[in-house]
Amino acid sequence: MSIFSKGIETLDDLFVHQLQDIFYAERQILKNLPAMIEKAGNPQLKQDLAAHLQQTKIHVQRLEKVFEMHDAQVKAVDCPAIDGILKEADEVVGDTADFAVLDAALAAAAQAVEHYEIARYGTLVSWARQLGRNDCAAILRQTLEDEKAMDRRLTELAETQINYQAA
Amino acid sequence: MSIFSKGIETLDDLFVHQLQDIFYAERQILKNLPAMIEKAGNPQLKQDLAAHLQQTKIHVQRLEKVFEMHDAQVKAVDCPAIDGILKEADEVVGDTADFAVLDAALAAAAQAVEHYEIARYGTLVSWARQLGRNDCAAILRQTLEDEKAMDRRLTELAETQINYQAA
Repeated sequence: MSIFSKGIETLDDLFVHQLQDIFYAERQILKNLPAMIEKAGNPQLKQDLAAHLQQTKIHVQRLEKVFEMHDAQVKAVDCPAIDGILKEADEVVGDTADFAVLDAALAAAAQAVEHYEIARYGTLVSWARQLGRNDCAAILRQTLEDEKAMDRRLTELAETQINYQAA
Repeated sequence: MSIFSKGIETLDDLFVHQLQDIFYAERQILKNLPAMIEKAGNPQLKQDLAAHLQQTKIHVQRLEKVFEMHDAQVKAVDCPAIDGILKEADEVVGDTADFAVLDAALAAAAQAVEHYEIARYGTLVSWARQLGRNDCAAILRQTLEDEKAMDRRLTELAETQINYQAA
């Protein structure tokens, strides 16, 4: 079913729909991170994922704040994109005898999640500004910067430790 | 089913699996881009998506070349992530009376696709180098740069034309 048949006609509607989509995504990430943390063998990867779990709780709170500021109902809509990304990540969090290769797969999966969020928050910041909601944009930008920082940390960790250990 | 139960034990196995994943993804993108191009109202967006369709054909050929160089079977494996991202994009390519809002949704959907590819090609370049395949890394990097350039073009187009027109 088209999102437009659900009543999206203006950029404001689209902005709220995208908020609902990323709200669902953040909560799914919250549910999935503990299994990834448990499986991670590299201590730094485990620590970074655990820190990101705490950060993700804050991202959910920020979204609730933006819904409230924008006078929109706090609501999640299904997000097939994050479901697909996490399904792939979950496949990686399977049993394996080689923890080093699993770490490489986990870090890659986490970066796919980060990039989904970078795309969505980037769009949300841009739409918020266009709608004259610089206050909402400022909050969304904080999370965007968190996601970019996590992606950079994962790249550095992969290139300095994880990929080397996996090879 | 875990990818590890399919016999992924080394970083090399993981690299080939990820090649197969993005090979599937690129071909799904090829299938889905024509509908997005047809729906795009903004002439520049239509043109950029059409140019990206041609570029995507080259990305598929580059992957075939990397499979061959790495002596791996040219093969696709299901990629739930891109299926989910494209399912969301497809929801946006529904009927709507407002072309300007649809363009904003289309540009955002295309950026979600680009970011998935940026994450995956970034990882592939890194793994190829770790495996001593700088020749494969160089080819994969060309596509990574194409995807980053497309993402930047979409951001600029959204912020200079599309979001303004949609608001």
